[in-house]
Amino acid sequence: METVSENACFGGVQGVYSHSSKSCSCDMTFGLFLPEEAQSGPVPVLWYLSGLTCTHENAMVKAGAQQWAAEQGIALIFPDTSPRGEGVADDDAYDLGQGAGFYVNATQQPWAPHFQMWDYVAEELPALVFKEFSLEPELQAITGHSMGGHGALTLAMGLPGRFKSVSAFSPISNPTKGDWGRKQLSAYLGEDESKWAAHDATLMMQEHGFDGPVLTDTGTKDQFVDLLMPESLAQACAARRQVSTLRMQPGYDHSYFFVSTFMEDHVAFHAEALYGG
Amino acid sequence: METVSENACFGGVQGVYSHSSKSCSCDMTFGLFLPEEAQSGPVPVLWYLSGLTCTHENAMVKAGAQQWAAEQGIALIFPDTSPRGEGVADDDAYDLGQGAGFYVNATQQPWAPHFQMWDYVAEELPALVFKEFSLEPELQAITGHSMGGHGALTLAMGLPGRFKSVSAFSPISNPTKGDWGRKQLSAYLGEDESKWAAHDATLMMQEHGFDGPVLTDTGTKDQFVDLLMPESLAQACAARRQVSTLRMQPGYDHSYFFVSTFMEDHVAFHAEALYGG
Repeated sequence: METVSENACFGGVQGVYSHSSKSCSCDMTFGLFLPEEAQSGPVPVLWYLSGLTCTHENAMVKAGAQQWAAEQGIALIFPDTSPRGEGVADDDAYDLGQGAGFYVNATQQPWAPHFQMWDYVAEELPALVFKEFSLEPELQAITGHSMGGHGALTLAMGLPGRFKSVSAFSPISNPTKGDWGRKQLSAYLGEDESKWAAHDATLMMQEHGFDGPVLTDTGTKDQFVDLLMPESLAQACAARRQVSTLRMQPGYDHSYFFVSTFMEDHVAFHAEALYGG
Repeated sequence: METVSENACFGGVQGVYSHSSKSCSCDMTFGLFLPEEAQSGPVPVLWYLSGLTCTHENAMVKAGAQQWAAEQGIALIFPDTSPRGEGVADDDAYDLGQGAGFYVNATQQPWAPHFQMWDYVAEELPALVFKEFSLEPELQAITGHSMGGHGALTLAMGLPGRFKSVSAFSPISNPTKGDWGRKQLSAYLGEDESKWAAHDATLMMQEHGFDGPVLTDTGTKDQFVDLLMPESLAQACAARRQVSTLRMQPGYDHSYFFVSTFMEDHVAFHAEALYGG
């Protein structure tokens, strides 16, 4: 693992690190915020998964999460959204290939050799960060934005017992039914739709639910709301009697201005689950 | 004036607008955050001037200022740092020409026709925003980062009575003495150093001072601290008995991670001057 940068930030350290990834067969970069408390012992962890076109950097510089994580003594991890590099397959569209890994393990060509983002975020990166940093593996929570909200919800439900709480900002909530989903799931996983179900938050909610609280925020003026389908997840949560708070926020859109507005609420929500549980 | 974008943000609106600038003889773009309170009447204004290489956008997305401005009911204005465009002179170096206007009116070629950033920020942009938006001209404050900290301090002292308070993050504090200053002041204003004095915060503090409180923060690990010379301004403030708080923050560098860490303090400082004065 190599240190790309470390900056003092809200009493802690915002670092960027790169490493050779076995699951993605390329170098991967991630951001990690360690609060001051990490100097005296392991701290809880909040994973933040980003959306289409993002790298590890977008949320790290635009979501305003560090201040609330510092206040709560929680670390933040910002993984990249896909494998990258010259030898890695890509597509001209912004929503497929590099920057659009969708948090799945691709089985189809040309994606399969590198696009193993589920394994990367679920297994390889946790193993690395818990070895290298002062983090408490028993106290993890997860959040994300858009495609990253999809990733957070599906990882949380797909890895029972791993996360104490899950939240999402404008998550892609029912990707097997919409254009943000069907295109990528068919490209990465093939045409057999039964293979897609583990990567659809609404279907996962219907089948499995989550053993902890769920919080989502979506803007009423989100320009992509028809692709996100918050109504599907809302229906599924209510039908399952899932402990959940799903909010539609008046006038907000899909941007980081929206994400940063509600970040305090999300970090406080996770802190309560991590410390109160 | 043209609306480039408007996003809901912390209960208010983060807008981006462009207009044809007379002083800079080109189109200029700026960011403006209006808190919810602006819907019911004019609100106080905090100007934020950015540093070398920045546009109107950097602080708008990375400084985390909107949340505190929303809490205090204060508007934020984010001007660009220079004229821009194909017909505008530029230089290969990052610290001269486009993105490096230094908040002066250039008198030298090839800069003079467009690089009139003092007039733009001091006269033209205020006239526009006070006409177009619900802002209170009697309640203005100013801040900035690096080159923008230099701009904030020199504008505050050069326009007595305009601003209730001034603050700066890692300001270029004595540009007539350092490489971040001598190069630009000689290029824009010529070799007669007597013309530079009005654009040096330390010299302005020695000669004029400021009729209000001053706050600055600079990181002890700022990689550019030798170019910033906070010690010159500190000496001048103390010598003048200027009401001021000049802080060196342990371990912080020059980045927006540093700026965002202390933004709450700066907005609260200005709010006290704007509402308490």
